[in-house]
Amino acid sequence: MQSHTQRSFISLLALGVLFVVAQGCASQSLADQYRVISYRIIESTLEENDGYQKMQELCDGIGHRLSGSSQLTQAINWAADAMRADGQDNVRIEPVMVPHWVRGNESLLMTKPRVAPVVMLGLGRSVGTPEEGITAEVVVVSDEKELEELGNGAKGKIVLFNNPMPAYDPQRGAGYGTTVRFRSRGATLAAAQGAVACLVRSVTAHSLRSPHTGAMNYGDAKVKIPAAAISTEDAAMLARLQSRGVPIEVTLKMQAKTLEDAQSGNVIGEIRGSERPEEIIVIGGHIDSWDVGQGAHDDGTGCVMAMEAINVLRKLNLRPRRTIRVVLWTNEENGLAGAKQYAADHKAELRNHVAAIESDSGGYKPLGYSFECSDEAKLKIAEKQLRDIAKLLKPMGAGRITVGGSGADVGPMRDAGVVLMGHRVEGKIYFDYHHTHADTLDKVDPQEFSQNIAVMATMAYILADMPNRLGEETSK
Amino acid sequence: MQSHTQRSFISLLALGVLFVVAQGCASQSLADQYRVISYRIIESTLEENDGYQKMQELCDGIGHRLSGSSQLTQAINWAADAMRADGQDNVRIEPVMVPHWVRGNESLLMTKPRVAPVVMLGLGRSVGTPEEGITAEVVVVSDEKELEELGNGAKGKIVLFNNPMPAYDPQRGAGYGTTVRFRSRGATLAAAQGAVACLVRSVTAHSLRSPHTGAMNYGDAKVKIPAAAISTEDAAMLARLQSRGVPIEVTLKMQAKTLEDAQSGNVIGEIRGSERPEEIIVIGGHIDSWDVGQGAHDDGTGCVMAMEAINVLRKLNLRPRRTIRVVLWTNEENGLAGAKQYAADHKAELRNHVAAIESDSGGYKPLGYSFECSDEAKLKIAEKQLRDIAKLLKPMGAGRITVGGSGADVGPMRDAGVVLMGHRVEGKIYFDYHHTHADTLDKVDPQEFSQNIAVMATMAYILADMPNRLGEETSK
Repeated sequence: MQSHTQRSFISLLALGVLFVVAQGCASQSLADQYRVISYRIIESTLEENDGYQKMQELCDGIGHRLSGSSQLTQAINWAADAMRADGQDNVRIEPVMVPHWVRGNESLLMTKPRVAPVVMLGLGRSVGTPEEGITAEVVVVSDEKELEELGNGAKGKIVLFNNPMPAYDPQRGAGYGTTVRFRSRGATLAAAQGAVACLVRSVTAHSLRSPHTGAMNYGDAKVKIPAAAISTEDAAMLARLQSRGVPIEVTLKMQAKTLEDAQSGNVIGEIRGSERPEEIIVIGGHIDSWDVGQGAHDDGTGCVMAMEAINVLRKLNLRPRRTIRVVLWTNEENGLAGAKQYAADHKAELRNHVAAIESDSGGYKPLGYSFECSDEAKLKIAEKQLRDIAKLLKPMGAGRITVGGSGADVGPMRDAGVVLMGHRVEGKIYFDYHHTHADTLDKVDPQEFSQNIAVMATMAYILADMPNRLGEETSK
Repeated sequence: MQSHTQRSFISLLALGVLFVVAQGCASQSLADQYRVISYRIIESTLEENDGYQKMQELCDGIGHRLSGSSQLTQAINWAADAMRADGQDNVRIEPVMVPHWVRGNESLLMTKPRVAPVVMLGLGRSVGTPEEGITAEVVVVSDEKELEELGNGAKGKIVLFNNPMPAYDPQRGAGYGTTVRFRSRGATLAAAQGAVACLVRSVTAHSLRSPHTGAMNYGDAKVKIPAAAISTEDAAMLARLQSRGVPIEVTLKMQAKTLEDAQSGNVIGEIRGSERPEEIIVIGGHIDSWDVGQGAHDDGTGCVMAMEAINVLRKLNLRPRRTIRVVLWTNEENGLAGAKQYAADHKAELRNHVAAIESDSGGYKPLGYSFECSDEAKLKIAEKQLRDIAKLLKPMGAGRITVGGSGADVGPMRDAGVVLMGHRVEGKIYFDYHHTHADTLDKVDPQEFSQNIAVMATMAYILADMPNRLGEETSK
C-alpha cells in the first residue's frame, strides 16, 4: 500500500510530466519537432539515392524533349514508369494538349562583307521564312529607343537587337530579366517598323559561340516576321562592322512552323497522406525542354529532384499526415499548357492544396526557398513556419527563406490562395547553359544534386506532416 | 688670357665630366638608359594605337584562314598592304609552299541507344571516311593503358579517348600538355589495335558543347583511320552510357582530304636599323589559323601585336641601331612550313639574328617573356640583360622573365644560337577558346591588347638599340 506521501509524490510527478509535455507541444518549434527525422532524411539521401541514375536515364537515354516531340512522350512515360517502379501511389498521366512547334532546318549566312556562317537558333513559336530564305541588309540597334530613332531606316531590313545581358552580380543576380524582352517582343517591335526579320543577341553573359533559344511571342502583331537568336560573338561582330560603316547582308533560312496541337500530359505520383490525405503538398518541375542539349538543368533536375524526394521518403517508410504529390508539368517552355490544365482539372481540390513547390532554376547548390501567397494573413504565418523549418536546412547551406517569387508552373494556383514556393539554388552559371546545346548532364554535380533532393524531401515531408497546416496558426 | 689656376680648374672640370660620363656608361643599367624612352613608347601606345582597328580588319573582314585557303592569301596580302600603308621598310611576302588540308562536310550521329547528333570537329590532316560514313560500335577508354587492355576489343570499333584536360592551375598552368597527345597520336594507337576510326575528347577544361580541332599526325602508321574531336559533353555522355552497360553505335562521316601543296608566304616588314641594320630582332606570330572562329587569339593578336609595335615606333620616329623585323609565319597550325622556310631562306643571316620573339599564346594581360638559347654562355648574359630591361615593363605587370621555352615558329633558329623568346600572357582561359568557333575578336580586351603592343614595342626597341648585343658583355 502506498503512503500518502508516496501518492502525493506520484501525483505531483504525473502533473509535472503532463506540464512538460503540454509546454513542449505549445512551445516546441517545428525545427525541434522534426530535427531527428530531418537528419535521418538528409543523412540517408546524401548516403545514397537514385537521383543521378534517373538523370542519366532521362538525359542520356531520352535527351531533349520539346512539346509535341516523340521524346517528350517517351520522357512522360519514363517518369510514370519510374515512379511506379519506386512503388509510388496513384501514378498517372493527366492528359494535356500542347502546342507543337517544330524548328526544321535553319541557317543564317552572312553574305556581305564576306561569306561566313552566323551561329544561330530560331526562337520558339517563330514563323519560318520562304524556302529561298530572306536576304536583306542588317541594321543593328541596342534597344527600343534606337529602333524607334531609325524611323523608316528599318524598312525592308533585318533588325538585330544587340543588347548584352549584364554579368551575374551577387546582389542583383543574373541579368536575364533585363534583356529577355528583346527575345520575347523584338520581332513584334521590328515588324512594326517595317523589318522583314528579327535577330536577337543570345540572352547570356558568357558564351563560347553558343546560341540560346527560347520563346518569343507575336502578341497581337498584324505582321509576323521570323525571329532567331545569334551568338553573342556574332552579334558583337555585326555591331563592330556597322560601327565601322561596313554594309552587312545576311540570308536567313528557317523551316520553323507550328503544327496542330499535340497530345501530352502532366505526370503525377504521390505518397498518400496517413491522416489527411486530401490535403496536398505539390512538388515538381517541368518535364518538357527546348529541342537542344539534354534539358538537364532546365528542368531535368527539377523533375528528378521531386521524383527522388518521395522515393527517399518511401524507402525510409516515412508516410506523412498529408499527401505529397509530385507533378511534372508539360509544356512549360512554350505555352504553360500543363500548368494551366493542372489548375483547371484540380480546381475543386485547390483549397486543399497547402503548398506547391516548383524547382525550375537548375540543380546547383541549394540555397533555400522563396515563397508567395495571395492571402496576406496566411503569408505572414507561413513565413514564420518556413523560417523555423529552414533551420534544419542550414547544414546544407539551404536555410534562406525569401518572400516573393515562386515559379511559372505553380502560378495558376495563385488565386486559390495556395502557398507557392520556389526551390532556390546558386544562380551564377545557370544562364550560361540555359536553352542551349550545352544544358547537359555533366553540368549537374552529383553531390549538389543529392543535396537538392535532401532539401526538397525534408521540406516536403515537414510541410506534409506538421500539426498545423502551413499558413495556419492553430491545428484544425 | 686665362690664369694657371683657371686653366687647371677647367682641366679638372673636364676630367670630372669625362669621369662621370665614363662611369655612367659603364655602370648605367639598361633600365636607366631606356627609362625615358620606354615610358614614351608605353604612354603613347596606351594613349592611342591602331591595333584593334587592324584586328577588326583581319578578324571581321577576313575571318579564319587555314593553310591553302583563299582567306589565308587574303590575310597575307592584307598584312603586307597594312605594313606598306604604315610606311614600313622592305615589306615583302617570301614564298612558302604549304600543306592544303580541307575539312569538307562532316558529321557524327549517335544511332544507338538513340538517334542524336554528336558535336564534333574533324582533326587537321585526318583522312576522310567513305561517302556512306563509318558505322560502328564505340568503345571508350581513358588512356593508352586502357586501350591496350582491350586487346582485340577495339577491333572493328571506333575508339573514343575520354581523357579530361585538367583545369588551369596557377602553379602548373593549363593542362593542355598532359592531354593533347591523344589528339596527336590517338588515331595511330587506335588503328594499331584494329579500330576503324578514332574520337578524342576535346582538349579543354571548359566547354559549352564546344569542339576543339587541332593537328593530328599518322607518323609512320600503316593504316590511316579518320580522327575527330568531340565536345567534352558528348565524350562524358558516351562514357556514362558505356559505364551503365548501354551499347553505343555511331556513324562518322568526314569528307576531309589533303590536296596538292598550295602557294603561301611569310609576310615581312621592317624598321631598318640606323647603325647596324644587318643585326636583326625578329618579332612576330603566325598568320594562318584553323578553319573555325576568327583566329583572334590564335594568332591574330600575335601578328597584329608585332605589326603595331613597329608602327608605334615609326610614329614616334624611333629608329633603333639594329633592324626590327616583323615576320608573320604561315602554316604554323598544320605543318610549320613557314617557320622552316624562313630559317632556310635566311640561313646565312641567322648569325646576325640577335633575338627572335614569338607571340602565340593569345592577347591576354601581358606577363613578360620566356627565353632560351642553345649557347649557354650567351644565355647567362642575356638573362641578366633581359631582367634589367624587364624592370621597365613592371608597371604593366609584364616584368616576369623566365628561362626556357619560346615558340614553335622561332624553333628552327635554335641551332644557330639565336636568343629565342616567347611573349607571355595570362593563360587562364586561352584553352577555352583555342581552335574553336569561339576564338573571336570579342574575347580580346582592347586595353590588354594595347598593353601587349606597348610591351612588345618596348622590348623590341631596347633589344634593337642597346649598345651591347643581347647575350654579349661588351660592345663590338
